Amino acid sequence: MTVSKTAEKSSEKPGDATKGRKDAAEPQGQVHAEALQLGELSEQLGYVLKRAQLKVFENFLRCMASLQLTPAQFSVLLLVEKNPGRNQTEVASTLGILRPNFVALLDNLESRDLCARIRSTNDRRSHILVLTDKGKAVLTRAKKLVATKHESRLNELLGQANREALIGMLSKIANEF
Amino acid sequence: MTVSKTAEKSSEKPGDATKGRKDAAEPQGQVHAEALQLGELSEQLGYVLKRAQLKVFENFLRCMASLQLTPAQFSVLLLVEKNPGRNQTEVASTLGILRPNFVALLDNLESRDLCARIRSTNDRRSHILVLTDKGKAVLTRAKKLVATKHESRLNELLGQANREALIGMLSKIANEF
Repeated sequence: MTVSKTAEKSSEKPGDATKGRKDAAEPQGQVHAEALQLGELSEQLGYVLKRAQLKVFENFLRCMASLQLTPAQFSVLLLVEKNPGRNQTEVASTLGILRPNFVALLDNLESRDLCARIRSTNDRRSHILVLTDKGKAVLTRAKKLVATKHESRLNELLGQANREALIGMLSKIANEF
Repeated sequence: MTVSKTAEKSSEKPGDATKGRKDAAEPQGQVHAEALQLGELSEQLGYVLKRAQLKVFENFLRCMASLQLTPAQFSVLLLVEKNPGRNQTEVASTLGILRPNFVALLDNLESRDLCARIRSTNDRRSHILVLTDKGKAVLTRAKKLVATKHESRLNELLGQANREALIGMLSKIANEF
């Protein structure tokens, strides 16, 4: 496969260009070989947020393949570990997960014996959530994987100071936008 | 409705706290009144990215209510305006939208006479995309709304320099993570 030099309008390094175009790969036989110009799109907050989030989730799933945990499942385990005995509704609303999705997520965690729903003694209509021993063990391994394989990539990419600035700005947007 | 002072563990200003808890609102009659502690979760890149992205998309939809455009539809219109005559597959893959989702999205735009699919003269199997006159007019109005009601909020919240730093870091993550 030959690539026209004139089609290389980007100023990215070759290595970066390959990575950046992974999901923009064109099927063979296209008339146009050059990449589309993003124009104003590359400055749209929502667009860059969504692209970054998708890339980070993809990487998370790859790093967590051995434990088969999604970002949402990991969040639930972390939150239940930090707040044992709180009820299902509180955990779901804190994470902003809709009830039907949250029920399906808990069914999955419970079927794998990572988390248990216990009927509340204070309010018989609600269920409190606790981690099982297996859930605690899996979460410990998950945290190590996330720290060493996933979050560490962000430090490599941006540096520690920028990483902190980024998390701070994203939190501000999540709370105040 | 009374709020226990001891439940206010956050150092946020009252106005911020109200905003931050909008989607963590608890139903009445909960045994626990205090908010759950996020702990390590608040430092997880994927978690803060997702929360920020959801908040930004919510705001986008509100700002764009009069034009009924989603973030993805707006992205398609912007990209087709910048790259008229490129084919459906190229536009979908540049945006990272899966084919079935993209077909549904285009059906919607076409039914509203904002965008047209034209059979390519070079490759009869593919369709090129162009904006209709109505599509161009709607996009002009949409850009104004986004700039004045949506993107401007980010400048207010973070300041111009931080805004640029944020977009730069998110683009780097989207391309290189």
